[in-house]
Amino acid sequence: MTELRALQQRLAAFAAARDWDQFHSPKNLAMALSVEAAELVEEFQWLTEQQSSDLDAERRERVRLELADVFIYLLRICDKLGVDLLRAADDKIALNEQKYPAERVRGDARKYTDYD
Amino acid sequence: MTELRALQQRLAAFAAARDWDQFHSPKNLAMALSVEAAELVEEFQWLTEQQSSDLDAERRERVRLELADVFIYLLRICDKLGVDLLRAADDKIALNEQKYPAERVRGDARKYTDYD
Amino acid sequence: MTELRALQQRLAAFAAARDWDQFHSPKNLAMALSVEAAELVEEFQWLTEQQSSDLDAERRERVRLELADVFIYLLRICDKLGVDLLRAADDKIALNEQKYPAERVRGDARKYTDYD
Amino acid sequence: MTELRALQQRLAAFAAARDWDQFHSPKNLAMALSVEAAELVEEFQWLTEQQSSDLDAERRERVRLELADVFIYLLRICDKLGVDLLRAADDKIALNEQKYPAERVRGDARKYTDYD
Repeated sequence: MTELRALQQRLAAFAAARDWDQFHSPKNLAMALSVEAAELVEEFQWLTEQQSSDLDAERRERVRLELADVFIYLLRICDKLGVDLLRAADDKIALNEQKYPAERVRGDARKYTDYD
Repeated sequence: MTELRALQQRLAAFAAARDWDQFHSPKNLAMALSVEAAELVEEFQWLTEQQSSDLDAERRERVRLELADVFIYLLRICDKLGVDLLRAADDKIALNEQKYPAERVRGDARKYTDYD
Repeated sequence: MTELRALQQRLAAFAAARDWDQFHSPKNLAMALSVEAAELVEEFQWLTEQQSSDLDAERRERVRLELADVFIYLLRICDKLGVDLLRAADDKIALNEQKYPAERVRGDARKYTDYD
Repeated sequence: MTELRALQQRLAAFAAARDWDQFHSPKNLAMALSVEAAELVEEFQWLTEQQSSDLDAERRERVRLELADVFIYLLRICDKLGVDLLRAADDKIALNEQKYPAERVRGDARKYTDYD
């Protein structure tokens, strides 16, 4: 069993032991994931970009746990919808490689802002 | 090398080949992650909870790729900050187990809304 | 002077008195607005749609203040960028009326999910 | 009638004419608001703070309409929940004045990052 699958099963057991599955529709889990993403943003919102690369120990630990929260909800949604997250990432990277060929994009900073 | 580490290296090479590292401060990556999380939310916002569990093929594929986008930015931030995501998730789950003991929380729906 | 303009001036004075203008780039203010939007979402994430229409007094007051936070950052960004928010809303509604003609859209629930 | 109230009535009529009220629970509207906030963030995510203050005409117009979208959903939620947005902003600013007295906060950049 892969590491991600093991983690998903642990999270499913965690929710089941608390009767929380009734709340865990993909819709609600997507909301929760976006809230955790915002808690991550909140850590960075008044920092300069440079400061965001050079966190003090206390903020770095808060950031680390917010990253974990995003990951936890991401895995929960994938579990609920039967999505293989590693395979989805592989497929998306392949699409991005077609969409943004390195030779065309390289160093084109202005263009970058039109991506995603 | 673990699967996540391999994926992180692939993403780092992807960014380097396009000169995108200059944009990838943790601050900017956190913004990008939250935007991808919102694109996921957008897929669910007018659906009922029941509908969100029972997606048609077209929307399911869009959701799958949005989940991948969130994961990709999550791995990029972890790479930039030197965070081990699997370990962070383990640590966060352990904290949650202390914070929400199953025997106390079980079936307490009203209480749930105060969590996170 | 309109009510919105008066409020914007009050907020500008509030920031100036605290030397906070240095943090209030449109980029940072947009992040802060999205964080406040997420705090609003957090109030609703585990509620049913019906429950979200019928809030108890305590949550309703929290929601009211989160709505105020979103509004405050929205007005700050408009002030910084010289945007007339009422006029922008008028213009956007006119665009929406062209994009979603009532006679074509009416009752087409499935279609709705493709909007925005 | 105030300008905001007039705008709310126009938005309510717009939704009613399209049978969209069935989708406009406060929960769903909060999701939609957060998605619009993210579309605003997306405009800024790869810009420097300086660039975000000095937008070209095309991006400025997109930003202006995203600000309108956030405002539109904000007014819809307030209408649905019977919240007076101007009064809520007044109340929140009064709370902020107590929480962050100018004389204590002034110039304390590090402290700022702990606010909100």
